[in-house]
Amino acid sequence: MSFRLAVLGAGAVGGSVLDLADTYGHEVVAFADSASAAIDPDGLDSQSVRARKEREGVVGDGDPTAVFDTDYDVLVEATPTTLGDAEPGFSHVERALLDDRHVVLANKGPVAERYGDLRALEAESEGRVQFEATVGGAIPVLSTISDLGAGHVTAARGVLNGTANFILSRMAAEGLDYEHVLAEAQDLGVAEADPTFDVDGIDAALKFVILANVLSDEATEYRLDDAGVEGIRNVPGTALDLAAEDGRTVRLIGEATADGVRVAPRLVPKGSTLAVTGTQNIVQLETQHAGQLNISGRGAGGPETATAVLSDVSRLE
Amino acid sequence: MSFRLAVLGAGAVGGSVLDLADTYGHEVVAFADSASAAIDPDGLDSQSVRARKEREGVVGDGDPTAVFDTDYDVLVEATPTTLGDAEPGFSHVERALLDDRHVVLANKGPVAERYGDLRALEAESEGRVQFEATVGGAIPVLSTISDLGAGHVTAARGVLNGTANFILSRMAAEGLDYEHVLAEAQDLGVAEADPTFDVDGIDAALKFVILANVLSDEATEYRLDDAGVEGIRNVPGTALDLAAEDGRTVRLIGEATADGVRVAPRLVPKGSTLAVTGTQNIVQLETQHAGQLNISGRGAGGPETATAVLSDVSRLE
Repeated sequence: MSFRLAVLGAGAVGGSVLDLADTYGHEVVAFADSASAAIDPDGLDSQSVRARKEREGVVGDGDPTAVFDTDYDVLVEATPTTLGDAEPGFSHVERALLDDRHVVLANKGPVAERYGDLRALEAESEGRVQFEATVGGAIPVLSTISDLGAGHVTAARGVLNGTANFILSRMAAEGLDYEHVLAEAQDLGVAEADPTFDVDGIDAALKFVILANVLSDEATEYRLDDAGVEGIRNVPGTALDLAAEDGRTVRLIGEATADGVRVAPRLVPKGSTLAVTGTQNIVQLETQHAGQLNISGRGAGGPETATAVLSDVSRLE
Repeated sequence: MSFRLAVLGAGAVGGSVLDLADTYGHEVVAFADSASAAIDPDGLDSQSVRARKEREGVVGDGDPTAVFDTDYDVLVEATPTTLGDAEPGFSHVERALLDDRHVVLANKGPVAERYGDLRALEAESEGRVQFEATVGGAIPVLSTISDLGAGHVTAARGVLNGTANFILSRMAAEGLDYEHVLAEAQDLGVAEADPTFDVDGIDAALKFVILANVLSDEATEYRLDDAGVEGIRNVPGTALDLAAEDGRTVRLIGEATADGVRVAPRLVPKGSTLAVTGTQNIVQLETQHAGQLNISGRGAGGPETATAVLSDVSRLE
């Protein structure tokens, strides 16, 4: 089935959804950044929208709020993740669900910080909510949990922040300290100028909070505040040296279990399944009857995350 | 949605489907081995059926063919895989589809050897055909391909036979030769008395033929005869020693690409993603826009494979 998409957020993910939608048989009829919108009921041309943004700094002549007045089937919410009330993302999602449209999120805020509100709105709407792209980019974690049945998955564990993993991998491989490798990662574009979200474990914690929400019963809701979070700023190079002498290394490991959510640097055996290198992500699912499943791949990136978004769209039957 | 299942095949997989169906919200109304059938429109009790099989050698008083006359929704075909005409499995599937019932296969024969016939029958039926359990047990390979869209996956590669992988892992770890480790694997129940299917690469090839059928366009059909297959009988211990000196090891690697299907022992870097140990399976999917996805876990076993069967059943909405 072919859907008309309205895309909010013109960053790497939103832009890639615009680029790739037609290869999945869908079309983008509205595309907005925070200041402007491009709208075409017959489907936008990705190249001309991108060229205009490049040339004039706007994606089109419309106002961002005009997106909601177009004849779209699915809202793709790809604006930046915000904490607390998860605004303005949450209001975008609310508006679409009240209008009985489907919503596919790449923005983690509403799923991590206001899961109960989100599910309550969905229950009153003809629209459905999907959010595979919020956990591990291209890695099909949530669809696997959905196929197994959330009740048959007892825990999720893994590495869900590529920036922190890149830094720890490089520190161990090159014997360099945190500050040095962070600067290198920033030069390479792997770490942002303000790396707080990644290196302090917040980004990973949001993803494990989302996993905890999906795995727990409806009465239990998790938020970032419920998670125990420790980042990698204080991991000294000497700790990695000591780990290496013992055949181990350090990874920023997150867990969503019946005991809640926890993200912290942990020792893992070198070469073990959890010891992915570089910007790779991995999730291990503990199942009731099928042992442990491991899923790894690229956890970030525009086309990678857009693939998760578009797979979610196609899943809306 | 709750489905009534008719299960053909009372081996490890069929038995586990009988055991676990109710934890997925389904019930088994018919259960047959090659000589007898247990039938109860109100749902069979797993323990009493298993006890009777243990005690009397039959699962119930019915004739196996009576299964098709019951009021079931989904046929679970879990009889042993056969090559060539894939009988009697294929006729079971045909009967169910002609009666407009859904079919979930754990039997690889019909999907690997008669894929075109299977899809043609499905096209004429109100029933649908699912077969996640035929590839890698509990590993969600086919559902991931379906979510990504088969057209967006350019190749599948990996280790899909746990017995061969166990033997190669042990040969490398212990410096033992093939015959010695095979005998050990047979003692442990990891290898069958006649290990041909596993050690000659036939079982792995059938799985990669199924992947090739799923990934290719409808006009192209693969069968076992189209696959290039080389097993592990002739891998000498010295080859593993030489590989180890070079930081590598040997794995029985299968591939389904645009060039067809190939299974053969291959050198892979030690500790690399493809170098899974013991009876683990792994599949790598090459995608157009999302890089490489790796999925690993238990590729065989009754409850593991039954989990894939029951996830397939639940996917029939």
